[in-house]
Formats: sequence, C-alpha cells, structure tokens
Amino acid sequence: MIEINKHRYSFPKLLTFGFIMVIAIGTLLLLLPMATRPGLHTSFMTAFFTSTSATCVTGLTLVDTATHWAPFGQLVIAVLMEVGGLGFMTFAVMTSLLIRRQLKMSTRFLVQESLNLDNVSQIQVVTLIIKLSILIQLLGTGLLYLDFGRRYGWWHGLWLSLFHSISAFCNAGFDLFGNSLANFKNDPYLLTVFAILIIAGSFGFLVWQDILQYRKVHRMSLHTNLALRTGAIIMALSVIVYLLTERNLSQFHDEMSWGMRLINSIFMAITPRTAGLTTFSYTELSAAGLSYTILLMFIGGTPGSTAGGIKTTTIGLLTLQAIATLRGHRDPTLAHRRFRQDNVFRALTLLFVALAIIAIAILILAETQDLPKHNSLTYVTFEVMAAFGTTGISLGITAKLNLLGKLIIMALMFIGRVGIYTVMFSIFNAQPKQPSYRYPEEGVLIG
Amino acid sequence: MIEINKHRYSFPKLLTFGFIMVIAIGTLLLLLPMATRPGLHTSFMTAFFTSTSATCVTGLTLVDTATHWAPFGQLVIAVLMEVGGLGFMTFAVMTSLLIRRQLKMSTRFLVQESLNLDNVSQIQVVTLIIKLSILIQLLGTGLLYLDFGRRYGWWHGLWLSLFHSISAFCNAGFDLFGNSLANFKNDPYLLTVFAILIIAGSFGFLVWQDILQYRKVHRMSLHTNLALRTGAIIMALSVIVYLLTERNLSQFHDEMSWGMRLINSIFMAITPRTAGLTTFSYTELSAAGLSYTILLMFIGGTPGSTAGGIKTTTIGLLTLQAIATLRGHRDPTLAHRRFRQDNVFRALTLLFVALAIIAIAILILAETQDLPKHNSLTYVTFEVMAAFGTTGISLGITAKLNLLGKLIIMALMFIGRVGIYTVMFSIFNAQPKQPSYRYPEEGVLIG
Ligand SMILES: [K+]
Ligand SMILES: [K+]
Repeated sequence: MIEINKHRYSFPKLLTFGFIMVIAIGTLLLLLPMATRPGLHTSFMTAFFTSTSATCVTGLTLVDTATHWAPFGQLVIAVLMEVGGLGFMTFAVMTSLLIRRQLKMSTRFLVQESLNLDNVSQIQVVTLIIKLSILIQLLGTGLLYLDFGRRYGWWHGLWLSLFHSISAFCNAGFDLFGNSLANFKNDPYLLTVFAILIIAGSFGFLVWQDILQYRKVHRMSLHTNLALRTGAIIMALSVIVYLLTERNLSQFHDEMSWGMRLINSIFMAITPRTAGLTTFSYTELSAAGLSYTILLMFIGGTPGSTAGGIKTTTIGLLTLQAIATLRGHRDPTLAHRRFRQDNVFRALTLLFVALAIIAIAILILAETQDLPKHNSLTYVTFEVMAAFGTTGISLGITAKLNLLGKLIIMALMFIGRVGIYTVMFSIFNAQPKQPSYRYPEEGVLIG
Repeated sequence: MIEINKHRYSFPKLLTFGFIMVIAIGTLLLLLPMATRPGLHTSFMTAFFTSTSATCVTGLTLVDTATHWAPFGQLVIAVLMEVGGLGFMTFAVMTSLLIRRQLKMSTRFLVQESLNLDNVSQIQVVTLIIKLSILIQLLGTGLLYLDFGRRYGWWHGLWLSLFHSISAFCNAGFDLFGNSLANFKNDPYLLTVFAILIIAGSFGFLVWQDILQYRKVHRMSLHTNLALRTGAIIMALSVIVYLLTERNLSQFHDEMSWGMRLINSIFMAITPRTAGLTTFSYTELSAAGLSYTILLMFIGGTPGSTAGGIKTTTIGLLTLQAIATLRGHRDPTLAHRRFRQDNVFRALTLLFVALAIIAIAILILAETQDLPKHNSLTYVTFEVMAAFGTTGISLGITAKLNLLGKLIIMALMFIGRVGIYTVMFSIFNAQPKQPSYRYPEEGVLIG
C-alpha cells in the first residue's frame, strides 16, 4: 500500500504500530466486566482475538457476538471496525496533517507520496472522502432501519441497523444475528442494501478520490482503471462460476425462488472478496465452490480499501504482465499507459511472499490443531485464506483452535489488513544501503 | 528451459511437436494386441494416457503396469520413459547436430543457446553425459539384479532390474510390483540403490555438465550453484518436516525398526520432487504431510532434468529476490554473482502462470468428477500437483477420472514435462514485434 522512497521505514512502522495500539486498547476495553453479558466470562485470548478480528475488519470470532458481548462490548467492536476500516484513512490523514505541521519538507513529501497525494489540495479530497464514508454509513443505517425497525423494535432495531451498516461498509463481517445474514436470504431489499454498502466500502481510497474528482479532471488514474476493470471481471466470472458450481443453489429446493437464487449467487460473488457477510453456511458449498471461494479470498479486494489478500490490482497487473511476456511484448499496458517496472516486481514479490506465508501457516495448522477427521486440509486452507483475505467466512473451526492456532490466525489477519510490505518493512527494519559495487551478472535456467 | 532470443519460436515448437510425436507413436504401439496380456483389452484412452504418462515420466496409471501389459507393452513403456527422460537430451543434441549441419550460423547459435552450450566443444560433453547416463542405468540394473536375481529368478529378475533402473534414473515412477516399492520398505540395500539412481537422474543436464567439467575449469555456473544449494536445503527441510509430521512413521508400529523409519523418511523426502516411487501408500499420510507433499510436487526438481513443477531454481531465485526486495537491496545475488533481471521476471511469470493453470485445473476437476465424499479437494489437489510435478504419486483417483478428467491430467503432465514456457510459446505463436512507440508510464498501488 505504501509507496517507498529513500525515507522508506518511517511510514510502515507508524502504520504497523498504530494498528497494534488500536488492537491493544480494544483488548483492554473488551476485558472490562461491562463488555461481557452478565454471568459470562471473557478470557484474555478471546478479547485479544476479537479486538484483532474487529480492527483488521476480518470477522472471525471465537464467541457469538450477539450473545456473548454486552451492549458496551458490541459498541467497542463497532468502533474498532470503524477505526480499522474507515479509520485507516482517518489515521493516515491525521498523521499526515500532524507531521506536515512539524516536520521538514522532505518528510512531508514522503507522507504525501505514502498516501498517493499528488498535491496538498488533495488533503481536502481525503477529508471529503471521510465525510462521504460517514454519510454512506448513516444512509445505510437509515435504509436498514426501514426494515429492522419494524422487525426488531425501535431501539434494538436502530442499534442493529447502525452496527450492520458499519460492518457492511467497513467489510468487517461481524453480525449480531448469530448466523450472519441467513435470516434474510429471501429478502431482496435487505440483500440489495447490504450489497451496495459492501461494494461502496470496497472501492478503496484512490478509487473514491478518482470518482469524486472525475467531473473536474476528466481523467481516471491507471490505478482506478485497473482496479475497476479487474474487479468487474472477477465479479462477472464469480457469478457465472457460482451459478455453475452450486447449480443455482439447488440445496435450497423449494424454500427459495429462482429470482432469489440469482440474488443470493450475486451476493456470494461479492462477499468472499472481503465482506464476509453470508446468507447461508459455507459448509453447504460444493467442493468446486469451496476451491473457488478460497481463490477469491486469496485475491481479496482493492488496495487502499479495507480488503485483505494480495489485492485485485496485483492479480490484474500480473495477468497483464504474463500475457505480455507470453506474447513477446516488452511492457504490460492498459488504456494507453504502461505500468512501471518496479510495480510489476512489487506485485510478483508480493505474490511469492503471500504464498510462502500461507503455505507455512497451512502446514503448521494442519500439524498442530485437532481437526475434523474429514476434509481437514480444506477446513484449514479455508480458515487461513479467510484470515489472510480478512474475509472472515469460516467453516467453523475458529473456536476450536488451540493457542498456537489462534495466534497464527491473528497474525494472518494482521498481515492481511496492514499489508505484507508494510509488516515486512517494519519487521525486517532494513537499511536501504546500496552497495557501491555490483557483482557480475549471470543467468540461470528457469522452468 | 529454453533461452529465447529473437529467433524465439523455432525450438519450443520443435520440442513440443517432438514430444507429441513420441506420445502418438507410443499410443499406437500400446494399442497393438501383443502389448496387452491375453484376455485383457486396452482402450484407446488407456493407451493414450499410459503413453503420455510414460513419455512425460510421470507414472500416473489407469491400469496396473505389471498385470495389464504383456512384456512387449512393458518394453514400450520402458523405451518411452527412456526417450522422455534421457532421450530429451538425446533428442536435443541430435536436433542440434542435425540443424548445425544444415542451417545458417544464427540458428546454430540459437540451438547452442537453447541448450546453454557456450561453445561447440561442449556438444562432446553432452555426448559424454548421455554415455554416463546409460552407464549409470546399467550399473543400477546390475546392483538391483544382485537382489532381484535371487528374489525373482534369473530372467524375470533381470527384466525387473532393468525396468526399475530406468524408471528410477528417469524419475518416471512406473513399477512392476503393483504397490511401487512397498515390498522393500524394510530393505536398506534396495532403498539406497533406488535413492542413488533417483538423485543421479534428478540433477539435470547443466549440473552434470558442470560436475563433469569441474576438474577442468574449477568453476561452477550460477545455475549449478543455485540448483544444488536449493536442492540441498529443500532436501534437509523435507526430512525434518516428514520426521515431525509423520512422527517417524509411527503408523508402522512394530513392523519397522527406527533405522528403517529414518531411511524411509529420507526416501519420502526424495521421491515427491519428481521420482514418484514410494514405499507405502500416501493415503496413510497425515494432513500436514499431504500438504507438504503437495508443496514439494509443485516445486518439482532441477530444470534440464526429467522433473516437472516450477523447478528448484525458480523457487530459489524467487526466495533470493524476495529477501533482496524486503532488505532494500537492488539485486538478488549468490556466490558473488548477481542474477539477470529477465531471469527474475521469467521466474515470477512462470510462478503466476503455473498457479493460474493449477487453480483452473482444480476447479474444473472438483466440479466435473465423481469424487470421494470426504477429502475430495485434497484428493484433487494432490492429483493435479502429481501430474504437474510429473511426480505421479496418487491418492488413488486416477483410474476413476472421466474422459475430461483424464484429458486435464494428461495436459498437466505434458505441461509439467515440456515446460510452461515451451508449451505457451508454441500455442501463443507470438510474433516478437516490438511496437516502435511506448505508452507513458504510470504506477499503481500494489498490496
Ligand atoms: K471481513
Ligand atoms: K515421476
């Protein structure tokens, strides 16, 4: 997410540290007695895991959010989702404003570049985006309340509307119904409102900026172009694949009309990218559907959004690069512009590091957890991808993980949310020392 | 495998076409009545699949090699393994010799570059390698005969020794025992001979060349350096992982001594890279062991050998590149030399295309095959990797695949053996036209 120049280690560290602080504060608040419903007890690991899952907008849970947490605990979770989702931008803008006032020009330039802000006036655009985000969430609350108000009463309905509007827009995946959105699988109005909230929240920072500025500059950045195109292609492909693999949700027999099956299939195509709100249990999915969902979660959403995974732009750029290489062309291009070479390198390194992390996580979990007798590898792979993609859909093994398992899933959620590069740069703490000499070059056989 | 310059499309096409021809001839020979045991019938698909599996030195089978095929059929399979394994080099050298006599200098240069031959005198080295390969296989036959001769009688023992020496050296994985090497899991002598044959065969062309020339030039190519180091690291890691995940093969209780468990664990670490000869059924493996085996098969062996997968040098180079990127260095280096940038690009594109092919194959197989009720995704993933890595270990679904499933597995074996780049360049048939203009450059957010 972060463009790195020679001052490369300040911003990643700041971001990593910021997320850790938010998680720590969330854990402490969730450990307060008033956060838990009377008669129930919250262990440190449960509070720590829940705070991580909420801040990293993942949605994997050890306890049922509605029945375990008291209203105060639910409020803490809602605030953590907001800070982790929208607040990422807020945090970034606040930091940049703070730093701009205190630090010298070169660092100011770094922060602007970190946020891909071409000039200072765009800080205003960011403020606008934050205001817009809050407006959309309030609008979503209102639209949900039209239904939830009737269904669940005035006050409880309002709280449910606000909580799920935040959860949907921040693509966080927490719910207060115990079975996600399964109660509403036959409700086209609610599913449409949720789908719009999810999509609006999944665009990400830069795409919103471009959309808001389009009327003024009549030009879309290459990033927005790539993100929107890749997203649309994956979306269309996903609807087709799920219609085929789930044979139009035939497991629902008579309880679902054909129209609702289509709407649910579209919802299925939207949710694994990062949202994590589901209309039925994913244990009902076919093997092919599960493998495709694992792939979607690995890809994740748009960078600059709340999505995890390796991101749509990464997969889009790699596809263009692979096609260019195989066709013997020099550069991957899109819309009459070519991509910077270091972008391609970054994308490919990201893919490789992500694969390595995931392979190691799967191996350790498969070895150390007490898993279901059948399909254990599928369960583990699904769980790992749900954490790395900050999607939060689970086949139900989250609560059964032991301490090591929980820590691994938490680490994956963190890496998925904060970003591999940011975390890696913070951990490796590398000095950008370039040796003044270079070794002689030599080729090797590949593939 | 093939270095591409501006004359890039002749050699890949030649190679792809050559393999297809060998498979076609093999299919016809296996369809002859004398190839099948009396009373049994060989369908076209069985002959086609077996010919592909033997030529691509994979070892996946639809019928039991010992009981279905008559001696002539087994001989055909042995010759196909030899042509597919060793014969790849033979084929390449023969072609280069043939072309050198007829074509103009520039093409001659291409062929030399295709084989990474720095000068014409190295053709002699290749001839030497071929002679050495045949010598090793004859030696292996002799060493196996010391045991098999006593065990199975003079003539049958001799045939078994020759067949399995070829199968082991060419890393082909075919066997005439019906249960691979399970009969010999307590025989340290036979397992050692097999392990040496497998390792000798897995080095690949360039590494052998370097080893043979080392006394003369006292210098190892970067390729050999990387291949040997990566191979050794993966090997050591694999022994440790399997010792942990299989808890020293505890499923064998009293029937196996501790020493033999160690030898079998080492054999387990050697075989998934490409050999495919096993000392027990892989359905007995733990979930963690299966996931690690899937990873090993995906990586495969050394380029220029009979191995499939994305190759050890690819994974080694990508690891070095990832470490360099994360440490803020400019170039990935090894042994005081740096890698060519286009090598890194090639490796990364290879990884991406391989992943895309595998994901699509898994999705289609999961959707279209009648699979076991439990662990179906694991079975499919394992089968796909066994084909792509030309490893040929199966959890037992090969014979149950329908027509589409067989064709997909055959395509994967072919791609795994011939190489993604070679096949892609043949299919895409791209013209290396470089546009005289370049689009303006622009960056995107990655990760
Ligand atoms: K989520
Ligand atoms: K094999």
